[in-house]
Amino acid sequence: MRVLILGGDGYLGWPTAMYLSKQGFEVAVVDNMIKRYWEAQVGVEPLIPIRSLRRRIDFWNEITGLKIKSFIGDISENSRFVYNTISNFDPQAIIHYAEQPSAPYSMVTRNSCLETQRNNILGTLNLMFAIQRHNPDIHIIKLGTMGEYGTPNIDIEEGWLDVEHNGRKDRVLYPKRPPSFYHLSKVHDSANLEFACRIWNLRVTDLNQGIVYGIETDETILHDDLNTSFHYDEYFGTVLNRFVAQAVLGMPLTVYGKGGQTRGMLNIKDTLKCVELAINNEANAGEFRVFNQFTETFSVYQLAQKVVEAGKGLGLDVSIGEYGNPRAEAEEHYFNARHTGLHDLGLVPTYLDNKIIQRMIDVVTKYQHRIDRANIEPTVKWNSK
Amino acid sequence: MRVLILGGDGYLGWPTAMYLSKQGFEVAVVDNMIKRYWEAQVGVEPLIPIRSLRRRIDFWNEITGLKIKSFIGDISENSRFVYNTISNFDPQAIIHYAEQPSAPYSMVTRNSCLETQRNNILGTLNLMFAIQRHNPDIHIIKLGTMGEYGTPNIDIEEGWLDVEHNGRKDRVLYPKRPPSFYHLSKVHDSANLEFACRIWNLRVTDLNQGIVYGIETDETILHDDLNTSFHYDEYFGTVLNRFVAQAVLGMPLTVYGKGGQTRGMLNIKDTLKCVELAINNEANAGEFRVFNQFTETFSVYQLAQKVVEAGKGLGLDVSIGEYGNPRAEAEEHYFNARHTGLHDLGLVPTYLDNKIIQRMIDVVTKYQHRIDRANIEPTVKWNSK
Repeated sequence: MRVLILGGDGYLGWPTAMYLSKQGFEVAVVDNMIKRYWEAQVGVEPLIPIRSLRRRIDFWNEITGLKIKSFIGDISENSRFVYNTISNFDPQAIIHYAEQPSAPYSMVTRNSCLETQRNNILGTLNLMFAIQRHNPDIHIIKLGTMGEYGTPNIDIEEGWLDVEHNGRKDRVLYPKRPPSFYHLSKVHDSANLEFACRIWNLRVTDLNQGIVYGIETDETILHDDLNTSFHYDEYFGTVLNRFVAQAVLGMPLTVYGKGGQTRGMLNIKDTLKCVELAINNEANAGEFRVFNQFTETFSVYQLAQKVVEAGKGLGLDVSIGEYGNPRAEAEEHYFNARHTGLHDLGLVPTYLDNKIIQRMIDVVTKYQHRIDRANIEPTVKWNSK
Repeated sequence: MRVLILGGDGYLGWPTAMYLSKQGFEVAVVDNMIKRYWEAQVGVEPLIPIRSLRRRIDFWNEITGLKIKSFIGDISENSRFVYNTISNFDPQAIIHYAEQPSAPYSMVTRNSCLETQRNNILGTLNLMFAIQRHNPDIHIIKLGTMGEYGTPNIDIEEGWLDVEHNGRKDRVLYPKRPPSFYHLSKVHDSANLEFACRIWNLRVTDLNQGIVYGIETDETILHDDLNTSFHYDEYFGTVLNRFVAQAVLGMPLTVYGKGGQTRGMLNIKDTLKCVELAINNEANAGEFRVFNQFTETFSVYQLAQKVVEAGKGLGLDVSIGEYGNPRAEAEEHYFNARHTGLHDLGLVPTYLDNKIIQRMIDVVTKYQHRIDRANIEPTVKWNSK
């Protein structure tokens, strides 16, 4: 089975490519390296040096005897490239990670906001049109985020909501309350894709992913040249990844406000398994299927406490800081999100424990000399001029 | 009071500019004339010749002694222009009509879809950022459309819905089911604007307008050089405007499918009054206020019957055609939409009657020689490759 991965140079895209290649899928990746360019613009870099995508692929193909292909181009600007790539590789499934993935980046300036929405929305539209033209049966697996829902005062369902109003009923796309221009771009994408299912009978799985943590997968650990892009900075570093770097540096963990923000989380290895489950259980023609892709729920404060505890086991004295919240978000709220779809397909979760955090601390410690303190504290404010 | 009108060259923008100027507002208009360019690309033109925006403004200023100003530029591409215009004119309210307004146009090709979403979304984002920076108290009055809701099986509320789910309650943005890439662009805009209200305390009124009909306002009839851009074609002609042109030509009215599609409608003169009511009753700081802006509800078939009847009174033999539906939409459905907000502010509706349709028929008859038959029948199909 041929699987095309858009955004194959990224934190999740590259491990997904290796994992699926090893599982026996015929894999090709697409990227234009623009995330490396955005990183350079805001002055951040991966903690662990990563090789060029070309070198990583060549090395993977050398040591495994497998064959990942690559197509280098911009899916948001170059519709001809998207169509040619899909015609040429003729995939049965496409995993779509090719988006600007940072909420804070989208909130820096007018330009970073517009670039985020332009890149994400137009890239997804080009993808939809190319699939419709080449082969509407290709299964699109689109990475979204749990953050799109915001923190409603009602239970979060998997993408759709059965509503009763004034004695009548309907089933509607779950009403979302996205908390950044980045999250808004993902909501727009989902709405465009759901429409494409209605008019063109496309098959779409929307994976609303929780916050991913982790540095290593079974494939990245094979060799340093296979590392993925791990970030601890305020832009591209997710919360647990950031906390681990802070713990290693001996700086207080940057909990925003009261830390009562509760979020779904998952291990990077589970991301790969979830994507594989989605590929192997495709959406029906015309179906816009949504899974909430996370395995556990923690408040930010609980996460910080877990890092404190794991640090203690390694003789690290980790403290929890109090930071004014740079974001516009509720610090205490109801949160109860359904996430049974992927479990029903057979997901066996990797739960966060001391050992996992301690292994992360060990790896980060090895690269401690590369941590840039200037990039850790939050500087991007949601309500700044 | 200073009011800036974005899209001041358009079917509604230009009459709004004259109307508000006459009511004593200090008016400036912004446009980049791109709709004239889109029209030329798909080979359509207004039925009644219109002068350049510059000539229309000069003429208005000459005969009234009033002073409409103009700023020519692209709000989607040129953020500096948007900011400079707003700083320079320093309006208290901005009416935002500056969007690609046609559902069929957005469905023609990949390119027309991407251009619609790019233009509409990025233009609205540039507007939000300029207001946030210059003066967050400026009241944004954004034109949306009733079409964004689709045809849900529950009552349509004004923008927000009180939901009860599993015994808990929340108030959410009304879940929409937009029926075209154009409608999707408007939904995206609304979501971006609602977010700006939350983080920047902007004041926004979203006017979800029904289908507008009509050729004349009290201002356009003052002189031929003040006419507005009236379309009868499949791209930019709204349903009643199209039917009137068909009646004059003696061709069967293009009812799609069963004609049970039920829609909110309003007279072009009521659009102007609604916008004025919104200006005079501004949204609160941080409020995303939504009004459903229509006065009556008809099915497409009922509308066609009204045109048949009005034609009969003028000795025209009008027939109703049966066309395969080019759109993906329900032809029979529930439709009950609240529209009390503007009535509560004092709207006195102009109801559609025989006389109004007959006057439209008279005006169109005068320009009958300019009707291009090639542009009347629907050619854009929602599910074509």
